[in-house]
Amino acid sequence: MIKVGVIGCGYWGPNLIRNFNAQPDCELSVIADLDEKRLQQVGLLYPNTKKTTNYKEILEDPDIDAVVVATPMTTHFPLGSEVLEAGKHLFLEKPMATNSEDCRTLIALAESKDLQIMVGHTFIYTSAVRKIKSLMDGGEMGDIHYVNIERVNLGLFQKDANVVWDLAPHDVAMLNYLFEADPVRVNATGHCYVQKDLGIEDVAFVTLEYPGGKLANIHVSWLDPNKIRKCTFVGSRKMLVYDDVHPSEKIRVFDKGVDVAPHYEGFGEFQLQYRSGDIFVPQIEMAEPLKAETSHFLDVIQGKAIGLSTGHHGLRVVQVLEKACESLKNGGRPVDLVFDD
Amino acid sequence: MIKVGVIGCGYWGPNLIRNFNAQPDCELSVIADLDEKRLQQVGLLYPNTKKTTNYKEILEDPDIDAVVVATPMTTHFPLGSEVLEAGKHLFLEKPMATNSEDCRTLIALAESKDLQIMVGHTFIYTSAVRKIKSLMDGGEMGDIHYVNIERVNLGLFQKDANVVWDLAPHDVAMLNYLFEADPVRVNATGHCYVQKDLGIEDVAFVTLEYPGGKLANIHVSWLDPNKIRKCTFVGSRKMLVYDDVHPSEKIRVFDKGVDVAPHYEGFGEFQLQYRSGDIFVPQIEMAEPLKAETSHFLDVIQGKAIGLSTGHHGLRVVQVLEKACESLKNGGRPVDLVFDD
Amino acid sequence: MIKVGVIGCGYWGPNLIRNFNAQPDCELSVIADLDEKRLQQVGLLYPNTKKTTNYKEILEDPDIDAVVVATPMTTHFPLGSEVLEAGKHLFLEKPMATNSEDCRTLIALAESKDLQIMVGHTFIYTSAVRKIKSLMDGGEMGDIHYVNIERVNLGLFQKDANVVWDLAPHDVAMLNYLFEADPVRVNATGHCYVQKDLGIEDVAFVTLEYPGGKLANIHVSWLDPNKIRKCTFVGSRKMLVYDDVHPSEKIRVFDKGVDVAPHYEGFGEFQLQYRSGDIFVPQIEMAEPLKAETSHFLDVIQGKAIGLSTGHHGLRVVQVLEKACESLKNGGRPVDLVFDD
Amino acid sequence: MIKVGVIGCGYWGPNLIRNFNAQPDCELSVIADLDEKRLQQVGLLYPNTKKTTNYKEILEDPDIDAVVVATPMTTHFPLGSEVLEAGKHLFLEKPMATNSEDCRTLIALAESKDLQIMVGHTFIYTSAVRKIKSLMDGGEMGDIHYVNIERVNLGLFQKDANVVWDLAPHDVAMLNYLFEADPVRVNATGHCYVQKDLGIEDVAFVTLEYPGGKLANIHVSWLDPNKIRKCTFVGSRKMLVYDDVHPSEKIRVFDKGVDVAPHYEGFGEFQLQYRSGDIFVPQIEMAEPLKAETSHFLDVIQGKAIGLSTGHHGLRVVQVLEKACESLKNGGRPVDLVFDD
Repeated sequence: MIKVGVIGCGYWGPNLIRNFNAQPDCELSVIADLDEKRLQQVGLLYPNTKKTTNYKEILEDPDIDAVVVATPMTTHFPLGSEVLEAGKHLFLEKPMATNSEDCRTLIALAESKDLQIMVGHTFIYTSAVRKIKSLMDGGEMGDIHYVNIERVNLGLFQKDANVVWDLAPHDVAMLNYLFEADPVRVNATGHCYVQKDLGIEDVAFVTLEYPGGKLANIHVSWLDPNKIRKCTFVGSRKMLVYDDVHPSEKIRVFDKGVDVAPHYEGFGEFQLQYRSGDIFVPQIEMAEPLKAETSHFLDVIQGKAIGLSTGHHGLRVVQVLEKACESLKNGGRPVDLVFDD
Repeated sequence: MIKVGVIGCGYWGPNLIRNFNAQPDCELSVIADLDEKRLQQVGLLYPNTKKTTNYKEILEDPDIDAVVVATPMTTHFPLGSEVLEAGKHLFLEKPMATNSEDCRTLIALAESKDLQIMVGHTFIYTSAVRKIKSLMDGGEMGDIHYVNIERVNLGLFQKDANVVWDLAPHDVAMLNYLFEADPVRVNATGHCYVQKDLGIEDVAFVTLEYPGGKLANIHVSWLDPNKIRKCTFVGSRKMLVYDDVHPSEKIRVFDKGVDVAPHYEGFGEFQLQYRSGDIFVPQIEMAEPLKAETSHFLDVIQGKAIGLSTGHHGLRVVQVLEKACESLKNGGRPVDLVFDD
Repeated sequence: MIKVGVIGCGYWGPNLIRNFNAQPDCELSVIADLDEKRLQQVGLLYPNTKKTTNYKEILEDPDIDAVVVATPMTTHFPLGSEVLEAGKHLFLEKPMATNSEDCRTLIALAESKDLQIMVGHTFIYTSAVRKIKSLMDGGEMGDIHYVNIERVNLGLFQKDANVVWDLAPHDVAMLNYLFEADPVRVNATGHCYVQKDLGIEDVAFVTLEYPGGKLANIHVSWLDPNKIRKCTFVGSRKMLVYDDVHPSEKIRVFDKGVDVAPHYEGFGEFQLQYRSGDIFVPQIEMAEPLKAETSHFLDVIQGKAIGLSTGHHGLRVVQVLEKACESLKNGGRPVDLVFDD
Repeated sequence: MIKVGVIGCGYWGPNLIRNFNAQPDCELSVIADLDEKRLQQVGLLYPNTKKTTNYKEILEDPDIDAVVVATPMTTHFPLGSEVLEAGKHLFLEKPMATNSEDCRTLIALAESKDLQIMVGHTFIYTSAVRKIKSLMDGGEMGDIHYVNIERVNLGLFQKDANVVWDLAPHDVAMLNYLFEADPVRVNATGHCYVQKDLGIEDVAFVTLEYPGGKLANIHVSWLDPNKIRKCTFVGSRKMLVYDDVHPSEKIRVFDKGVDVAPHYEGFGEFQLQYRSGDIFVPQIEMAEPLKAETSHFLDVIQGKAIGLSTGHHGLRVVQVLEKACESLKNGGRPVDLVFDD
């Protein structure tokens, strides 16, 4: 039975709490949050779990094996360091830290103490992304040429990070996982519309180049009243659209089919030619990804599995975000990526 | 009664022929095409119109007032020059030419002979774009922050132009028209997948910056089995999605609404928060844009209207495409745009 | 070369004219319409075809082999009789006549003169219905249990027929074709909303029972601002949805999949369970059904094919409509159907 | 503080338990279920609530004010009677009972003891139905002409009730609520496909006639792999589509717009005419209806509100279901409805 403490009951923390609580080989021992009201509100659902506004109580508790940090990203490094120093395994929300140097420090610390770090790159644990991986690995799609991603919604505006640091970690982590590779170049264009004074970009277009000329265009935004999470993978044999907000058809696989005929007799027929192959919509298991993610963390801690989103994976994502923002500050100038960890 | 000759009965020419033929103050006098079979096939529908495989017959016919050139883009400049030299008004398909120098030559020639040039930037003449313009001009949307455009489909692969020259002219012309401005900077990333040997890009992501920090991201591709023509305009007050392939809801206007609540009790509710305001789907007149376009050309020739897609407009579009491709060849390096015509 | 005359250039006639004109082994000889303006308007597109406001000229022309009647349904019988009396093959728009007695008279007349009757049940000739037939015949769907059909739109309100006579012929003809059987019972409920004074129903719900307990529910309406043409076929193995107004996905085939789990942890997950099997969207050829239909008529006349929508088929449809309306007038009382022709 | 006991932790019970537990002026005192495993599983979430496999403990507990019965429909009457006999308010899941006689007995019993009965007609408490009611009451839609309802999904097959008793209560309760009237006539057609031996219909088409000629067609099925909950309300001024499974656009309001033009130039334009007016998609609050429903029950008990789904409402629904099934057994023969309670 692994004993887990959680620091942070804000936007995302309650989802982690709920899932760790439901894992059979895990005991949710302590919940910590600076905001006493928040703590009480969430705590109502877990009457038998200890609550505290002082997270140090978690670090000092010798019974606790692992600590989950679900706090704002600027606190990931200091809190993560304290957790590892206290000799406990670390589950850190994404992005792992605000810069790659801090990620490296955390990794070194964990390795010196023989502890595990897991970064909460949730999408790797979704049924949909798993399905995509298996379709890609099976060769059905041919070579992947490019990916086009939209990840946009209205707010929540962050104060301590721009939209790239807030939303793009999902996509970079997913692409690194799917391609089993890191990007070699990035450029990014963006703008600060709402938080102009703070200099925080709320819209960005990021283009990554992966080995073999694979391109990925990622559009992130906090300004779009429509929530869109859509990834289009175009391969040499098939195309796949992953629409994460569709209630029942998250993945659609398109056959290439034949080319469009060159001759039309009228305006209407001209407009009618929309696609040319069969479409297949596989059933995707409707499982909560956090269930798989929290279970995986417990397995990794117990040596039953090899981590899919370790500190090393988290670092790679942060490196891409750093360079994307460097490009952003330079009007879109492309930046080469070198990984030497 | 304006007498019109048409050079080119390929992919797009028959649409122009059909529309000029239907204009009440216009007579479709001659159709020319190098391919005799093609000429016969199209000509069956216009038994009383003269057909020829020698386009010079059109230029030499003193009764013809205006000539429509719907041929591959590399021939736009030589044919356009001949038409103007022959003293006839010129309707040129888009893009106007393969480089800005040729555009300038055509403009100078037309001005010296007091002739009109119109470039076939069809989207400016659609009911949908007209509706968007009126919504933007009416202030309902607030300041436009950014635009995200997808213009993708499977084939037809061009041999004499990459996908930027083939598909992006629509978007650049539309954006210039809607914003009543030219972009100040462009960067573009792309790749050659299918026609690698020819070095012809079949996928590209182009980012334009317009004055006032307006961004436009344009994704063009010949590799997507799904035909998508979708433009999302995000303004400070409202958002608008223009989906040109939707059979009945081409334009959707989204209210901003309020922010998403910060607390959820479970995974399901968390996922349920998709949008937060009302949506309005205005009826759009189902008119063929070429009807408005061809009618406008006849009006301009007769001095009844001022051109909306003249040679000058066509030149500006070509200048943007030139610089986009310069960026493309330099791995996405941003290029500033200066217009001095 | 078959010579064809067409009577009626109203709503549907021009579509038939265009298609007969385009058939290679057919000559469109004469077009007749009582309305001279209408005749001129349509005639512009067929400058070499004779026009007349006196349809008798068609009947008296010895060169004409076949006559197409695309006039209001109340005139189908008198005009059809004259055509057959004149010794010409007859293409009649649907429904064949306003009552089964007239249908029988037409059939007898045609047989006595060795002439063909074809009724314009267009849906039988669509790529989509052909695809459904092949899926049903191949056994992939299992036994068909029931069909649910919506065929609704706004207007055009008819003066000489209710909505059942106007819209349901499509569905009855399609179902008879797909099931290769006639219904054994019908009941219908409906109401007159807009044309109350004339007693003409504008909305109806018709339920047909086919042999083997197959049910078909047909909802027809002139009052729905949304144009819907949707047929859901539920079989013991698979389900198929045929959405005729979808621009690119007319047919969707649903696997049954497994049952929904009985236990949910929250409201959200409860709502998330929408379907349970794979979906397949086969590509459907985008062909105009009238092209197949007019070609088939020419083949039947020339003895090259056996008619799929002969007078006998048309009669069966009219018999069902008659009994549906009998039920309608009796508040939905079911009526047994007996066919003894 | 109202003390509540719940009998039944099956499919729906846990949703009621969760919501009563979350009501501030309510204490969830006891949960009963015959199945000990089920009881434990659900009970884990409510560690401080008493659990029992003997529901009589709830009836005998003098502290308990109200009892929720969420058991199979055949037990509604015997359990409901016991609850009322024990002097406790009664919340009964729908349908209220298996016949109207039992409903009347329950009503008389409650009235004699001055107790409240509430039937769980959840849809009355949804944000969407409330929105429809306000749009109808505000006159915006004009006179409602007819309603077309699809309520279909795959399983869960019931053993003690047919699909009409299982699914149609939602619709009848909703329509009675919206129209503030009871239907005057019903006919129904259906069939037993899967549970042929038991004689339990799994598909039915029910047509109700409300005063003033309003028609409602309700299609219920357990055989449709697609989950559909869709109601189309056609009024003299506007139409409204209520799609309960759409994640973000549950209600769409269609303007009538003008009529379709009678002349088309080609097949394509002919097909393009899909609708003719504006569409409005109002934002609907994303609230769980059971929250409003359980809160309403507590208010009714405390005399703070007048019941919207009392025993009398429940009885009316059951009367309609009875007569619908009478029609079903008679091949669709229409049955008049008289209410004399």
